[in-house]
Amino acid sequence: MRKVGYLGPQGTYCEEIVLYLYKNNEAALIPYNGIDAAIRAVALGETDECIVPVENSLEGSVNITLDTIAHDVALYITKEIVLPVRHNLLGKQGCQEVTTIVSHPQALAQCRKTLAILYPQAKLKPVESTAEAARIVAGSDGLYAAIGSLKAAEIYGLAVLAPDIHDHQANSTRFIGLEPQAAACVQGKSKTTFVCQINGERPGSLYNILAEFASREVNLTRIESRPARTGLGMYIFFFDLEGSLAAPNIAEAVSAVKAKCLWYKNFGSYPIVYVI
Amino acid sequence: MRKVGYLGPQGTYCEEIVLYLYKNNEAALIPYNGIDAAIRAVALGETDECIVPVENSLEGSVNITLDTIAHDVALYITKEIVLPVRHNLLGKQGCQEVTTIVSHPQALAQCRKTLAILYPQAKLKPVESTAEAARIVAGSDGLYAAIGSLKAAEIYGLAVLAPDIHDHQANSTRFIGLEPQAAACVQGKSKTTFVCQINGERPGSLYNILAEFASREVNLTRIESRPARTGLGMYIFFFDLEGSLAAPNIAEAVSAVKAKCLWYKNFGSYPIVYVI
Repeated sequence: MRKVGYLGPQGTYCEEIVLYLYKNNEAALIPYNGIDAAIRAVALGETDECIVPVENSLEGSVNITLDTIAHDVALYITKEIVLPVRHNLLGKQGCQEVTTIVSHPQALAQCRKTLAILYPQAKLKPVESTAEAARIVAGSDGLYAAIGSLKAAEIYGLAVLAPDIHDHQANSTRFIGLEPQAAACVQGKSKTTFVCQINGERPGSLYNILAEFASREVNLTRIESRPARTGLGMYIFFFDLEGSLAAPNIAEAVSAVKAKCLWYKNFGSYPIVYVI
Repeated sequence: MRKVGYLGPQGTYCEEIVLYLYKNNEAALIPYNGIDAAIRAVALGETDECIVPVENSLEGSVNITLDTIAHDVALYITKEIVLPVRHNLLGKQGCQEVTTIVSHPQALAQCRKTLAILYPQAKLKPVESTAEAARIVAGSDGLYAAIGSLKAAEIYGLAVLAPDIHDHQANSTRFIGLEPQAAACVQGKSKTTFVCQINGERPGSLYNILAEFASREVNLTRIESRPARTGLGMYIFFFDLEGSLAAPNIAEAVSAVKAKCLWYKNFGSYPIVYVI
């Protein structure tokens, strides 16, 4: 049976995705307690695939995901899944007072302004995941609350103290599936991703890279810089392109860029799945 | 007397910077328990300036700093300070076993691989700051250790269990000073920073922005995208340019870019200070 790893424990948004993708017990779903552990398990052959978050529309990139796929493993992106995020404040039944709110750092950041109005005195405390936060609250003295999904409330027997507490309504998270082989045949709406290091000491080097896309009318949907880890001011760039490498203009643009880079790694082309 | 806010409590790397900048009691130094609180205090007139971290050479941008200066306040960057970072594992005198390592999430991330070798069984736990971590360890049962500076070890009476535990030696952090007015006269090595939103629906729009710099031989030292917070796939871009707005080619390029953007905010020009 296919083994699929994800960022656990039970009740995370990531679990919602794997349950959506593998509805009818088509796969053994294995929770990992860290994003890098879930990714490394695929590289080690312990699992066939993993599903991890890569970007949120409010908080931006999930750095550990980008850094691990760039530096530590050789895997391909085989799908992208977009999930609308709805955060809720969860607490014990009959909870009257909240002194401390626990959750994953990104969830805390996504609700910061709403919580400052609703619970101005409460301390915000970061923990490993939204599900871990719910587990802590279930075992607490009742003065703790967690930010999490309705699924987490159900699993850990918590009440919803306040629904929809995210600061902005346009809140979605992108997840990616990672596998040892590239997706075989990509149809429908798709993307292509690669990462490269440009010689930043030459002025205009990023401009020269973008010229290869512009001249071939390739649409760049995202550019994200991360430290190259060789010193301050040295970066690697992740590029997301609209379409797949099966399109000649994309294949040509990517080859041209590769020839201009100090270092380059391709994550392949993959379809986009929208969760409604 | 001049009031300078910084990310506290006592013993943070940020405190090291303000002590370096204001050696002889030239300013009242006020610790804040969050980066956004330190920044907002300047906007509210409670302090004249604040010093906050903006980027680390391994972990990348400090998102809360970028998001707060882009969206929530109207301040200028008046200086940049570059500090080489040296992390140490701190614990109680005579500590034999470490079950949990606490620190700021960026410090934990910067030492992840070294700690996985030295203390494979230890749990990593994120807290507000490196100094807060040292405070927790000082009050713990001896099974906790913290990642922090030698200054933090001194303040909280801790022993150095392992020195220099950062994964990469090229580890520096950039801090910025923020004030209500732009720096008056910028001499020596300097930078100019602005943030803007580009119409991402038009292919090649980022390319057209970079063309304004390339054609005037303006060197872009950094480009960083952050979510525009209006939906997935919408970004704002921070640009760092080498030199000041007093240079005609930089002033012209910035004006040309401003005319092409949906939204634009200038943080001014400022000198660079290197801490040795």
